[in-house]
Amino acid sequence: MAASSIHAETLQSHYPWTTAPLVSSAPMRLITTDPLAIAVSQAGGLGFLGAGSGTDLDRFESLLKSTADALATSPLPGTPPGVLPIGVGFICWGADLATAMQAIREAPLKPAAVWLFAPKDTDELMAWTQGIRDASDGKSKIWIQVGTVADAVQVAKACKPDVLVIQGADAGGHGLVRSSSIISLLPETADALAAEGLGHIPLVAAGGIVDGRGVAAASALGASGAAMGTRFLASPEAAISEGYRNDVIRAKDGGVSTIRTNVYDRLRGTEGWPDHYNARGVLNHSFWDHEKGMPHEENKRLYEEASKLGDAGWGDQGRMTTYAGTGVGLITKTMPAGDIVREVLRDAAQTLARL
Amino acid sequence: MAASSIHAETLQSHYPWTTAPLVSSAPMRLITTDPLAIAVSQAGGLGFLGAGSGTDLDRFESLLKSTADALATSPLPGTPPGVLPIGVGFICWGADLATAMQAIREAPLKPAAVWLFAPKDTDELMAWTQGIRDASDGKSKIWIQVGTVADAVQVAKACKPDVLVIQGADAGGHGLVRSSSIISLLPETADALAAEGLGHIPLVAAGGIVDGRGVAAASALGASGAAMGTRFLASPEAAISEGYRNDVIRAKDGGVSTIRTNVYDRLRGTEGWPDHYNARGVLNHSFWDHEKGMPHEENKRLYEEASKLGDAGWGDQGRMTTYAGTGVGLITKTMPAGDIVREVLRDAAQTLARL
Repeated sequence: MAASSIHAETLQSHYPWTTAPLVSSAPMRLITTDPLAIAVSQAGGLGFLGAGSGTDLDRFESLLKSTADALATSPLPGTPPGVLPIGVGFICWGADLATAMQAIREAPLKPAAVWLFAPKDTDELMAWTQGIRDASDGKSKIWIQVGTVADAVQVAKACKPDVLVIQGADAGGHGLVRSSSIISLLPETADALAAEGLGHIPLVAAGGIVDGRGVAAASALGASGAAMGTRFLASPEAAISEGYRNDVIRAKDGGVSTIRTNVYDRLRGTEGWPDHYNARGVLNHSFWDHEKGMPHEENKRLYEEASKLGDAGWGDQGRMTTYAGTGVGLITKTMPAGDIVREVLRDAAQTLARL
Repeated sequence: MAASSIHAETLQSHYPWTTAPLVSSAPMRLITTDPLAIAVSQAGGLGFLGAGSGTDLDRFESLLKSTADALATSPLPGTPPGVLPIGVGFICWGADLATAMQAIREAPLKPAAVWLFAPKDTDELMAWTQGIRDASDGKSKIWIQVGTVADAVQVAKACKPDVLVIQGADAGGHGLVRSSSIISLLPETADALAAEGLGHIPLVAAGGIVDGRGVAAASALGASGAAMGTRFLASPEAAISEGYRNDVIRAKDGGVSTIRTNVYDRLRGTEGWPDHYNARGVLNHSFWDHEKGMPHEENKRLYEEASKLGDAGWGDQGRMTTYAGTGVGLITKTMPAGDIVREVLRDAAQTLARL
């Protein structure tokens, strides 16, 4: 049997309510809360809560509970006993493992997946992997996000994750300063894992995928699923302002209207990311003024003024952070998250059938 | 009929000896000469000569002649009358159109395709398009390479090319400083062209594609073909030193072992590229020393010393320019160019059948 068929079976056995290839909503800190994650899983995908980092975790226990409550009256078909058909994502360097473990241990239903991203080092990642497996009695499958071939192999050996998320340079928000797109990263990673006897780990592609064509392409490259972040920003369920959402819809030509930079992190006071990470966002006056040499203090002052404008802090004269991937130009309208999943699954199947 | 089927028919009618999806060897200045281009076309692809720019064109007429001579005894099936089943690529900003036109006009067989890249502006590109069409009596189909959605639409309207080459950020050698990978660039371009009534133009994807999985992914994204440069560097037909070729095979993890920069252009004295271009190459001591702050003059002196070492100018201690794309990590051995085409076509078909 081809590796890809084994992977599809693995993911289907973990997540029986889903349709192959697996479509996930990426955990986005403060953005992907229960309405979005639930809608994605209900439509045959796997929705992730952005549990985030730092004090975000204060809300994690109640977020798990509200999600479980919302799904109690309409359980998803085939969900394994004791499992919540929803995933949870942590930014490891800034999140407290003990808090996460306690919430998962006390939850009657364990998240179907826990997505780990950006640890300080491999030891921390191993601690998270073991801690979550312990706290969930193995019910929470471990997803680990990487952005290089070397990291994929190292993490696969050290943590034996259930899924590896392979993030390419096109992804919105945080990712590696230096990486390639999934067009070469995904197959090179697949080959490197296979050469190490680790080819059984399913790969989920992320970065630049926003529609069925992208999901079909990811499948061709060797992925068993795809994670989309930017696409779900244009759903009403995403917890962002209308100004942000409108900029996602407005931005075209994603390779030139977005850029990887740490300018937005600095302006909004996002601190603590390891140096080898930055974040892709839509260009606006904050970036252009930075590029023209505006001192940081002045730029920050203007940023803080803009932040008081609400939705008007975005738009033509906008300065506010608008994390988004290069796929932003393919997003032309707002659509409910469940409809996005159904459309993407349908278009991916049609694309593959056409080929 | 789906747009992709129409495109496949269009390309098959231009290039009847080829197998769909169209696999091309990208024109690489000084690197892709007649043995490589001929081998690619003989294997069912479309090989391109790198006619280049500047004084490179002094050799263009004889390059066309030697290619025609080599193919005279074994014509490719279905080649249209008066057509040489080989393409030619020009770097427009540095090439003399009159010289190119004269050589094509005087050649008994006209190149099946002329690939235009990096004009100073759209007027120059329109002059090239019209000039080549005139000189070839329309026998040379016009391919134009772009790296943004806006450029694709503008060029399609102004020049009505026969093919658009959509180059993503993963590509080796010269390309735009700012762009996305084909994962989002290709479908966004396809949609933008369709919205302008220009959806009939076939798209060829370039950047990060080195094997059948990449070609299959490009097809899923909406391309009718793929152009590979880096992969063919690892063929004996590529006119590069063994040191360069060995570095291509040695480099792994293409997202971190290569980078887009103008450091190598400056060190090797490559001048004249418009500011919005740089080039992706394999990292080595030239780049690392630049990054550590070594003055350009000192770096250039070391570069020139390294250039006297022959193949030893590459390798562990290497400093020499090694243009290559992010797909470099997927290339593990040297293979004849024709075998590359056959393997890629076979693997692309198998990948699509698997899906």
